[in-house]
Amino acid sequence: MSKSTRQKIAVFDSGVGGLTVLKELLRIVPEADYLYFGDTARLPYGSKSAETVAKYAISAAHFLESQGAELLVVACNTATALAFDKIKASVRLPVIGVVEPGADSAARASKSKSAAVLATDATISSHAYQRALAARGISSREKACPLFVPLVEEGWVNHQVTEQVARIYLAEVFDGGKPDVLLLGCTHYPLLRPLLERLIPAGVTIVDSAESTAMAVREQMGTSNSPPPTKSSLQCFATDSMEKFRRLGEEFLGRAIENVQHVDVDG
Amino acid sequence: MSKSTRQKIAVFDSGVGGLTVLKELLRIVPEADYLYFGDTARLPYGSKSAETVAKYAISAAHFLESQGAELLVVACNTATALAFDKIKASVRLPVIGVVEPGADSAARASKSKSAAVLATDATISSHAYQRALAARGISSREKACPLFVPLVEEGWVNHQVTEQVARIYLAEVFDGGKPDVLLLGCTHYPLLRPLLERLIPAGVTIVDSAESTAMAVREQMGTSNSPPPTKSSLQCFATDSMEKFRRLGEEFLGRAIENVQHVDVDG
Repeated sequence: MSKSTRQKIAVFDSGVGGLTVLKELLRIVPEADYLYFGDTARLPYGSKSAETVAKYAISAAHFLESQGAELLVVACNTATALAFDKIKASVRLPVIGVVEPGADSAARASKSKSAAVLATDATISSHAYQRALAARGISSREKACPLFVPLVEEGWVNHQVTEQVARIYLAEVFDGGKPDVLLLGCTHYPLLRPLLERLIPAGVTIVDSAESTAMAVREQMGTSNSPPPTKSSLQCFATDSMEKFRRLGEEFLGRAIENVQHVDVDG
Repeated sequence: MSKSTRQKIAVFDSGVGGLTVLKELLRIVPEADYLYFGDTARLPYGSKSAETVAKYAISAAHFLESQGAELLVVACNTATALAFDKIKASVRLPVIGVVEPGADSAARASKSKSAAVLATDATISSHAYQRALAARGISSREKACPLFVPLVEEGWVNHQVTEQVARIYLAEVFDGGKPDVLLLGCTHYPLLRPLLERLIPAGVTIVDSAESTAMAVREQMGTSNSPPPTKSSLQCFATDSMEKFRRLGEEFLGRAIENVQHVDVDG
């Protein structure tokens, strides 16, 4: 292969969930080439401590830098919430996380200046979204939803059990307050969007960080003057089974995944 | 502290679940001292590949050997199912897993020579219980239950959602066949035992590997002639947050956990 002059953007996640962000990037920033790193051997990050998540994320960031990445997108909400500054300090390239763009979208969408946030245990405990929303004048109620990721991975995205679990989580976050925005702070949750749309109160808008993060990357890259001459290349790296990554990943990305390479991150 | 002449038994699990095995060991083999290693930074093992699980389990086994363990109990069903031979080959001390003792218990309890097995994705895919049961003349139906561990960790051990999920899983495994034993092939599942007891067909006995594994250790150690002069010492090691290990772990062990030390396994 001849050396490409296209920019190489790396997307990092604990697993396949970040492919929902990559999907938006391929649409909004089609002139770049992509690297995707899923730390599937050590997922989920959502139940782990800040120190552990930072260590894992930094090792992935170093790997992607060594692969020639020119911009790093931390597509993992937990890694962004718990370790964004540490990741940023550990590499020389520009880094974009999902929390700030997600908070931007929520702030734009909310008229009542009140948002509900659903995310993993670790993201909620960090209050990263709450802080980012407060900085934009938005008050928020947060709810950890530890069963959503396993329910999505079980394939029960439209199942009565998932509906029952969602009703319990939503009741807590909408009880009393008047949020008019529901921010999905985990890359798995967009797959539950059709179900959640049915259950939220009237007048509530759902926003997720995938599209707004891609828009933030668009801004960082500057406007593209010409349409891309060829399709973006995509090289995926996974730390656990490549076959499982490919199978699950295609559901999240919505297209075939051709190149997956195994990476051993434990040295 | 003076050097103890008591035998030092190491118990290894991906997280806190193996404490259900340690609980039985403290009761049945009270004259030993214990080390417990929970690989909480890299859990769960149940959704990972055999290669990754073997690598993680072997690094834990080496650590425990370096800490003076004289016998290693692999309390993790997934690690036993996927990597028992590799773990055994990697250390010089005797190793006991949970699958063979669990299959022994099931074989003793079954009159119809037919068992139902519930476990994680990885354990079921390995068919380790199916093979162990077949070697004892017992046919089996297996069912992966990926939502049980997150439901237990959410604390929903007696929740209507968990009951609904359990009904779905049990219906599949009891449909048609005539198992008279339900083997719980994951260390988290004993916490769901009261709920499962209510849902299983009449005449079905629940067995789990914790007690039978402790009996296998008892056999390996020989009969104890005298009651132990003092309480067993217990040193725990966790690869993620010590506070979380202590908090969750006390629910599984049913007693206070005093000594937890953090271990960095990624070198």
